[in-house]
Amino acid sequence: MLNPFFYISNPINLSDIAKMLNIKINEDKNVKVHDIRDLTSADNKSITFFHSKKYLSFAKETKASLCLTTNLLKGYLPKSCKPVVVENVLFATSIVTEKFYPNSSEDEFDMDVTNIEKVKLNPNVKYGKNILIGKNVKIGNDCQIGHNTIIEKNVIIGSNCKIGSNTILRNTVLKDNVSILDNCVIGKKGFGFFPNKNKNYRYPHIGIVIINDNCEIGCGATIDRGSMSNTEIGKNTFLDNQIHIAHNVKIGENSIIAGQVGIAGSTVIGRNVKIGGQAGISGHLKIGDNVEIAGGSGVIKSIPENSKVMGYPAKNIRKFLRENKWFIQQR
Amino acid sequence: MLNPFFYISNPINLSDIAKMLNIKINEDKNVKVHDIRDLTSADNKSITFFHSKKYLSFAKETKASLCLTTNLLKGYLPKSCKPVVVENVLFATSIVTEKFYPNSSEDEFDMDVTNIEKVKLNPNVKYGKNILIGKNVKIGNDCQIGHNTIIEKNVIIGSNCKIGSNTILRNTVLKDNVSILDNCVIGKKGFGFFPNKNKNYRYPHIGIVIINDNCEIGCGATIDRGSMSNTEIGKNTFLDNQIHIAHNVKIGENSIIAGQVGIAGSTVIGRNVKIGGQAGISGHLKIGDNVEIAGGSGVIKSIPENSKVMGYPAKNIRKFLRENKWFIQQR
Amino acid sequence: MLNPFFYISNPINLSDIAKMLNIKINEDKNVKVHDIRDLTSADNKSITFFHSKKYLSFAKETKASLCLTTNLLKGYLPKSCKPVVVENVLFATSIVTEKFYPNSSEDEFDMDVTNIEKVKLNPNVKYGKNILIGKNVKIGNDCQIGHNTIIEKNVIIGSNCKIGSNTILRNTVLKDNVSILDNCVIGKKGFGFFPNKNKNYRYPHIGIVIINDNCEIGCGATIDRGSMSNTEIGKNTFLDNQIHIAHNVKIGENSIIAGQVGIAGSTVIGRNVKIGGQAGISGHLKIGDNVEIAGGSGVIKSIPENSKVMGYPAKNIRKFLRENKWFIQQR
Repeated sequence: MLNPFFYISNPINLSDIAKMLNIKINEDKNVKVHDIRDLTSADNKSITFFHSKKYLSFAKETKASLCLTTNLLKGYLPKSCKPVVVENVLFATSIVTEKFYPNSSEDEFDMDVTNIEKVKLNPNVKYGKNILIGKNVKIGNDCQIGHNTIIEKNVIIGSNCKIGSNTILRNTVLKDNVSILDNCVIGKKGFGFFPNKNKNYRYPHIGIVIINDNCEIGCGATIDRGSMSNTEIGKNTFLDNQIHIAHNVKIGENSIIAGQVGIAGSTVIGRNVKIGGQAGISGHLKIGDNVEIAGGSGVIKSIPENSKVMGYPAKNIRKFLRENKWFIQQR
Repeated sequence: MLNPFFYISNPINLSDIAKMLNIKINEDKNVKVHDIRDLTSADNKSITFFHSKKYLSFAKETKASLCLTTNLLKGYLPKSCKPVVVENVLFATSIVTEKFYPNSSEDEFDMDVTNIEKVKLNPNVKYGKNILIGKNVKIGNDCQIGHNTIIEKNVIIGSNCKIGSNTILRNTVLKDNVSILDNCVIGKKGFGFFPNKNKNYRYPHIGIVIINDNCEIGCGATIDRGSMSNTEIGKNTFLDNQIHIAHNVKIGENSIIAGQVGIAGSTVIGRNVKIGGQAGISGHLKIGDNVEIAGGSGVIKSIPENSKVMGYPAKNIRKFLRENKWFIQQR
Repeated sequence: MLNPFFYISNPINLSDIAKMLNIKINEDKNVKVHDIRDLTSADNKSITFFHSKKYLSFAKETKASLCLTTNLLKGYLPKSCKPVVVENVLFATSIVTEKFYPNSSEDEFDMDVTNIEKVKLNPNVKYGKNILIGKNVKIGNDCQIGHNTIIEKNVIIGSNCKIGSNTILRNTVLKDNVSILDNCVIGKKGFGFFPNKNKNYRYPHIGIVIINDNCEIGCGATIDRGSMSNTEIGKNTFLDNQIHIAHNVKIGENSIIAGQVGIAGSTVIGRNVKIGGQAGISGHLKIGDNVEIAGGSGVIKSIPENSKVMGYPAKNIRKFLRENKWFIQQR
């Protein structure tokens, strides 16, 4: 996972991890843990986490040396990976992640911005009035940035990008020729927390948002950054106005998404997908390449490639129209 | 009803009320009326209004001495409450309310704001650039306020609250530890008016928005203030991005509302309710405690506590899935 | 079509049009073409376009002297109109339009704005802080303009209009007594382009947005300007918060549209229409006068006047409720 932005602390002793989780462990307590990562990206200096059978195939092949998991799941791990058994895997993951990345769970406005007039810029960057730029921001050649826009810390913008007015960017990488229109908020923490009576507990978001070459993002979009992975939009994908993309979502290349669509967390959408206006897609689904989802549909299970679906719950479009005694009209 | 903000005029003679409504009345015209309130909160110096049998139980127990109502309904009022019969109760209510609260029907931007730099602030308030603060605004200790945010007149913010950037607040009370993210508009007049050919007639909004301890409101939210009661969100309730909450809505504690949900006017939602993304809830409904509403649902009638619903129209979730020949999947 | 804003280039030789489309033509290549317009508004100095049998009745009566069309459709044109046969009519139209209106396909922020303090204003215009005004902007008497609002080039505002804060206007005409609330984006290019692997091709938007007398537009609205015609909202029509109106949509007088509704491109909506919250309407439909569309509906075909519809796909409301074994409840 590309994570150029979040500060990682020094290695942490396993004994300290046990202490913060309020558990006892049999492993060598002086082991130093260097990072927390998901099952796939972890190396043998990292701790990982495994909380659901859905991730069995990844668990079996993890290279992590330690894994936060449950008594029921620990048997699936390879021998090279020692289980650290906890009651609530995600809650424990959250606590450990926050320790490694102390600046990633809260998400206040960036107090260290300065007016763009005081920033040294690349050639041919054009900009409007009242623009604020944070630390660790790079803006490529030939970019345009509209009025009142705030580019908070940790943003890399490629060349020839166009950012509208009243837009807020943070923890985001834009490749080349990307257009972001007005009133967007991109790169804020996602809607992830552990519900807890009286005071919910937010989990850290150490992922970023990556928007690839030639994309266009319409007015009023909200694109949240990932928690343990990135939110990413593939090349030449266009989003219309008022779209919400939740944390960890991946969208493939050359896709087209119409107005007011919402995509819930961790869903993966293929290439060349077309999604009609106001459609909603549940979290943790997989939408194959070349899928077409009719406007207004509610997608609650994964869709194989090359399908056309419609309805709520979304099903094969011909089936849906037949069930509704509706005849497919010639256009 | 808590209403710390709207200016109330001097008492008004009943004869003047008759004149503005263009009606004749038999009551003592020199009676002075001190306020207009709903059936429950009115006292014997107030006029109230009763326009639908739905409110019969409240009407029977009102303490108001006068009531705007119709010929059909006037018989249900207690003897202590004299009917003032009009053709259109809500329209008459609107006219009288505007007279008592002359500043409550129009809602222009606040011209009397000043830059936050010129305002005396409590300890440890951190703030960004270009922030405007209106009159009658209180900001508690340890708050943070993002760039370009406008806190118009009549706002009380508790301690340790975090307001994002580009957000607008007005006629709003935030208790402690509340987070409002970017690009929100909170406390504006609701979408309430009497349709009238060529020129609709807006009715007054003398309610406010109250957001209780530990709530989080996502980016791009619009939360309208109440007309004759308040819009209120209970403790530790979290709202995701792009949510619309209409006037007079009440939401209980510890609820979770996902992205792009819309809740229409005057609906009351219980505690510990979960609402999936893009669900819509019609106006004037009651959603019980612990209800779960699946994403994308359209709720058109009240839901008893502890139910799970799905679909449009939303019904019992197992029934909905069975009707759609859909098998509930194991997660 | 009213188009007071987009600059039209000098007449273009037919031979140059042939060259840019990479086609051969039999017509007199020295013919000068003065404009490109739709079938109805074209005159005998213009070229028009005809790409679908849906527009047959308009094609038969066009006054254009030239028409971009296909081999299959060219036979339907009147004798006075010479076909210019191309493979992809809309793509060709886009290329020619961009030549006539070189400033209409891209839509960057307006760099030529100045602070409102430096602009000469009509009597009784009240305004907030940090307001930017572009060239070719007219603001009528007695208007109010909120903080941080950007009125980019090409905007005409009538008298007694109220613009909220954080709102962006461009290529827009507001008649008298119009209210635009906060955080809106009005007059930006619509979501129109030719999908093209690796790099989509945007088509020009030479239409504008017209909002007629006494309208109100809620917070967070996006109203896109038209491509080859205007987007227009009739007198005294009220829109609630978070509504998206796509390019070329027409809405009649005295209509009421609740929160989070989305209307796709080129749909025409009649007078006195009521649309409930979160309803969606597909593109290129016709919704008759006095139609009522229930909240949450998904409208995928045209609706005759005086109908009430509900559901997805939207159908007669009684039929929908019966099919859902739902009894229409007394309110």
